[in-house]
Amino acid sequence: MKQPNKNFENRLFYVNFDFYFLAITIGLEMSNSYNKLERAINSRKNMLCIGLDSTIAKLPTHMPKTAESLLKFNFQIIEATRDIPAAYKINTAMYEELGEQGWDILKKSISVLPDDVFLILDAKRGDIGNTSMSYAKSLFDTYHADAVTVAPYMGEDSVSPFLEYENKFVFLLALTSNKGSQDFQRLICDGKPLYKHVIAKSSEWASHEKLGYVVGATHPGELGELRDENPKRVFLIPGVGAQGGDVNKVMKANKGDLSLINVSRGISYASSGEDFAEIARQKAIEYAQSMAI
Amino acid sequence: MKQPNKNFENRLFYVNFDFYFLAITIGLEMSNSYNKLERAINSRKNMLCIGLDSTIAKLPTHMPKTAESLLKFNFQIIEATRDIPAAYKINTAMYEELGEQGWDILKKSISVLPDDVFLILDAKRGDIGNTSMSYAKSLFDTYHADAVTVAPYMGEDSVSPFLEYENKFVFLLALTSNKGSQDFQRLICDGKPLYKHVIAKSSEWASHEKLGYVVGATHPGELGELRDENPKRVFLIPGVGAQGGDVNKVMKANKGDLSLINVSRGISYASSGEDFAEIARQKAIEYAQSMAI
Repeated sequence: MKQPNKNFENRLFYVNFDFYFLAITIGLEMSNSYNKLERAINSRKNMLCIGLDSTIAKLPTHMPKTAESLLKFNFQIIEATRDIPAAYKINTAMYEELGEQGWDILKKSISVLPDDVFLILDAKRGDIGNTSMSYAKSLFDTYHADAVTVAPYMGEDSVSPFLEYENKFVFLLALTSNKGSQDFQRLICDGKPLYKHVIAKSSEWASHEKLGYVVGATHPGELGELRDENPKRVFLIPGVGAQGGDVNKVMKANKGDLSLINVSRGISYASSGEDFAEIARQKAIEYAQSMAI
Repeated sequence: MKQPNKNFENRLFYVNFDFYFLAITIGLEMSNSYNKLERAINSRKNMLCIGLDSTIAKLPTHMPKTAESLLKFNFQIIEATRDIPAAYKINTAMYEELGEQGWDILKKSISVLPDDVFLILDAKRGDIGNTSMSYAKSLFDTYHADAVTVAPYMGEDSVSPFLEYENKFVFLLALTSNKGSQDFQRLICDGKPLYKHVIAKSSEWASHEKLGYVVGATHPGELGELRDENPKRVFLIPGVGAQGGDVNKVMKANKGDLSLINVSRGISYASSGEDFAEIARQKAIEYAQSMAI
């Protein structure tokens, strides 16, 4: 920050100013994801998480159906909503589908997200130890996620490489929002459903500052019960909007505890016209108000 | 295939020759993955699947630790073993870790695999319907996999987009080779372990020509039992070599049914010296012999 022709006081001001930003930068680097999430929710005063699950096929009608448009679409949605949500969630599948170009769009989209907002990469990974370590490096280091979603089926050694990452956070799938959640997650094993086993067992692996759970908005009854049993765990709650989950029921069931409630298509695809960014902003404000803390 | 200065008979021969290859090409395009797998096992006369889980850190000591070396390493391993196994399995995590460059290496490695050998992309994906569809497009269309591995936790609508892909094959995780398989997969639900529920329920979703199961070599007892119960289903059996699975026990438990037995580190990292490709070939031949049909 070069400042020619300034007097000493002025120079001192700028030196201090530099140190001030340096201190903030170090402070942010040292803090963990859990603290970042708490700060984001408290400063934005809501639990809204905006999902960026963009696909070329669903771009607004006036945009050419190209990868370049997809990036432009993401930039405009982020620009229009950046002061509203506590978090963004990006589903890696939609970008992976486009090959190397998709990963480039993912990286560029992430690069314009506000620094103080929480970033979840929704990848639902999970593999044997050395492989999960590769996934963790990719999602946390290469793409700078604050948190990732992980599938529990393969057990502790498939999840621990994500948990061992310093200052990062994991959302383990428990009771998902889709219809298929009834196939295995609700099976009764030793007197309780599988999803409760997943929570009980994995709770031994890490504290609430490292590990939370995905619980679908489409199951408000179970959400309320899980909240009573796990008041300190952060829940990532998808399924509001296109999937049919009801915000008011979710807010009541959540009882004010720390959660993120995700809306994807209900915001980014609320309009397919040229006003898509403006309408996305309006929808984001409405959802944020309904999820106010 | 231009042939100047040839007489009519010769030209006719070449025209027929062209049609012959065209017919073979069309035949291969139209056949499904299951048939391709059967043909590959029958022509190679063994059930060996070579895993290409290459990482920069584990490159032979004489190679520079770069992404370029990783591609060269893959090329050399494939070149040295291409006439031996029935299948190759590539774990996407190791490539994803390197960002866009990694996906480029993955694509280039796949481009030099023999056409008649089965390709599994081991990605363990699984998400809500529209998202699984994106993963399926990526793995089947962009990267030309014959089969992919899928995680079962999210149930039918997370698996069906993979199953609905024409002429492709899915290996669903049942009883995995890692230690963490004991955490949830072995939970007794309604009188039988979760992994048996996964097989029983998902068997209703697709025939044995579309859907097989991952069953770890580290559980030969359970493998034998699952074989008796599901003689027609193809099993993908990882865990031989570095993970401790025993080939002879696996072969006995498998009872000659259609399976692929994967070896990754035991072949590609058998030597870290300049002879790595030669030793990989030797090891592949030894493993193939021990897995002869």
